[in-house]
Amino acid sequence: MIRITSVSTAVVEANFDYTYVCIEASDGTKGYGEGFFAPGLAQSMREIGALLVGKEPTNVRSLVTMMRLATSASSGAHGEGALLHAVSGIETALWDLTGKLLGVPVWQLLGGKSRDTVPVYADLHAGTGLPSIDNLLRNRTPFWASQSGTTETGDFYWQSGDADELDFERIVERVQAAGHAGYRMVKLDMDVFEHRRDAEDQTLGTDQISEIAAQAIELRARVSPEVDIAYDCHWRFDIPSASRLHAELSPARPYWLEDPVNPTPEGLARVARAGSIPIASAENAYSLEGVSHLARDGGLDIATPDIQKVGGLLEGLTIAEWTHRNGIGFAPHCIASPLGFAAAVHVMAAAPSVRFLEFHGSDLPFWSELVTAPVIVEGSAPVPSGPGLGVELDLEVAKRYASPHEPFFTERAPRAGA
Amino acid sequence: MIRITSVSTAVVEANFDYTYVCIEASDGTKGYGEGFFAPGLAQSMREIGALLVGKEPTNVRSLVTMMRLATSASSGAHGEGALLHAVSGIETALWDLTGKLLGVPVWQLLGGKSRDTVPVYADLHAGTGLPSIDNLLRNRTPFWASQSGTTETGDFYWQSGDADELDFERIVERVQAAGHAGYRMVKLDMDVFEHRRDAEDQTLGTDQISEIAAQAIELRARVSPEVDIAYDCHWRFDIPSASRLHAELSPARPYWLEDPVNPTPEGLARVARAGSIPIASAENAYSLEGVSHLARDGGLDIATPDIQKVGGLLEGLTIAEWTHRNGIGFAPHCIASPLGFAAAVHVMAAAPSVRFLEFHGSDLPFWSELVTAPVIVEGSAPVPSGPGLGVELDLEVAKRYASPHEPFFTERAPRAGA
Repeated sequence: MIRITSVSTAVVEANFDYTYVCIEASDGTKGYGEGFFAPGLAQSMREIGALLVGKEPTNVRSLVTMMRLATSASSGAHGEGALLHAVSGIETALWDLTGKLLGVPVWQLLGGKSRDTVPVYADLHAGTGLPSIDNLLRNRTPFWASQSGTTETGDFYWQSGDADELDFERIVERVQAAGHAGYRMVKLDMDVFEHRRDAEDQTLGTDQISEIAAQAIELRARVSPEVDIAYDCHWRFDIPSASRLHAELSPARPYWLEDPVNPTPEGLARVARAGSIPIASAENAYSLEGVSHLARDGGLDIATPDIQKVGGLLEGLTIAEWTHRNGIGFAPHCIASPLGFAAAVHVMAAAPSVRFLEFHGSDLPFWSELVTAPVIVEGSAPVPSGPGLGVELDLEVAKRYASPHEPFFTERAPRAGA
Repeated sequence: MIRITSVSTAVVEANFDYTYVCIEASDGTKGYGEGFFAPGLAQSMREIGALLVGKEPTNVRSLVTMMRLATSASSGAHGEGALLHAVSGIETALWDLTGKLLGVPVWQLLGGKSRDTVPVYADLHAGTGLPSIDNLLRNRTPFWASQSGTTETGDFYWQSGDADELDFERIVERVQAAGHAGYRMVKLDMDVFEHRRDAEDQTLGTDQISEIAAQAIELRARVSPEVDIAYDCHWRFDIPSASRLHAELSPARPYWLEDPVNPTPEGLARVARAGSIPIASAENAYSLEGVSHLARDGGLDIATPDIQKVGGLLEGLTIAEWTHRNGIGFAPHCIASPLGFAAAVHVMAAAPSVRFLEFHGSDLPFWSELVTAPVIVEGSAPVPSGPGLGVELDLEVAKRYASPHEPFFTERAPRAGA
């Protein structure tokens, strides 16, 4: 019988820390997965992953149940928090490995596919280049881009003014370019301010609301109606500000308004009642219970679970069944490398109904190079037909950008002091 | 101005991993805290703690807000999961440091005290000695107790049969002894079975319910009515089994029935409706939102948040205000060393109303030795009057039992491969 022989990790310093896990089987087959960044994530992946060594790898659900029980004193009643990022990444690697061992794509092991391509939207941020952010949400210059050759860490990302990002003509150009590249939906940040602003300041003045709404209305007029536009507020506003913003933004007909407030069932419902723009949330929710809780009071129109965070592919598909039956849109958040992106594609290939999958890496120069075949073609993701995830991490490229403070799978041990 | 100069960690291999954090200020003053064990906890404490270096330490709430924002991409919408264990431990160390710098006890900084002693209950487990359990809930023999001198890891704790623990006369003796030692409440495990049992088996047969109830009724008759007895089910049963157990257990008049099911508002409410025994839960809940959610449907009579897990002292006190106003008992779960126990004592000194604080270390030979003065006297905890937490970690004792795979504060760096 085939057994798991090792579980190892690597971290690529990209726009975020792409945190990978590799599970090797006794016949030499390797499966790869990716978890959403968190402080201490690679360490907890290795500790939890060690539970799998010696186990048969293909009964994935049973291994997930074991990992959830083993972490139940540190993950709440239904599975929540940073350790679920580790479980999500490990579960993905188990699926990749199992698919390769059985010679079938992962979607086949999830009940078969419902479609051949998955619609993708481009997150264009605030219309400018993409910053790199560390596990504690500080701006950084990665080691491969810094003068010093070491990673340079700055302020929290919300502490920097973004005057450069507010050039309206540049935003228009980027949205139009995305449309020409085949994207039928783009997303822009709505929480960008010219001046440095305290994270605790959740208010929007009447003049700010007017300005934001006017710009969104003009942008809508300037861009082809074939391209939908959604806005992300990153939990930045309080309920009164977000409700007024929602009402005044309506003429711009956004595809959705995402995380206008720090999500609670009551808060989302209040903001939703202020207008008819679909409200999106749940990228930080864990497990079905965390996502469905947000819909309790009728304020969740689009669910945006992150497959690298919410619990993995099985959990993602359980949530997709739930959204389908409740008339809620399923549009996974994704800031992963192409490997984690591909994992989400398999969930969306199998799901009964889907909206869009997020693509967040358009400004990272080596995003596409991290895997050996393209995962996005003209604004959508072809569902892979090869065994496992159907895409392979390019280990040469990954190693070039890998954090020197972390192991690189079994090739390099953790450094002292790391 | 005084600044934080370093944040370091140490792990003592006890009945659990006691995970400590030390915050040193520029004048040499040191504050200590403790977090609830989790895979990767010490690593995440160091990463999050590094945010504090260079900061003034006494505006604790503001530093907690910063740590919560910095971990908001990996801790859900209201603060949840393993990183909150790190924040809880660091916040405790900030309070200890601040109290020492200002020359006042921590409870004074939390609004002053409401009482001079805090009632303590003894967790007697299943009536026998206490096992040691690792961060992934496996039985282990600590390095200081093993033949080999290295830590020996076994099965998950729920996989071992516990025939030795079921000697009824021994249970009676231990409860009586606790009463003589001054405890007015003890807690016993109700999820102990003679034979190895799958964790997935959540059922209780009619014969098992009869046997459990008969033993509880006899125990009640054999022990002085001055000593109350509570039972802990560790989320082991399904709703039908737990409801029937509740009904048949009523003649034994338990002080509470704890975690009869994996807690949901609906599940706790169903079990509560089966009888009049107070239902306790919430040791795995995070933040006020996690605890109060469990009370939604009327099934939470006693809240048992863990101060080392729920978010720290400020969060614990916020929850204590909420329980007081809602007629819910406040009885913190505690499996910490005497240092973390003392942190909970400060919360309970300040809280408007309290039930009991848990003492879980009665079978650990060196529990009391870990601090330089006793924290429990005749079944209750005197509220400390010294500055900070009012108890000091005995560094010599801690070092003797410290995990060799982990740093020991600033004295020993993390080992390669750890």
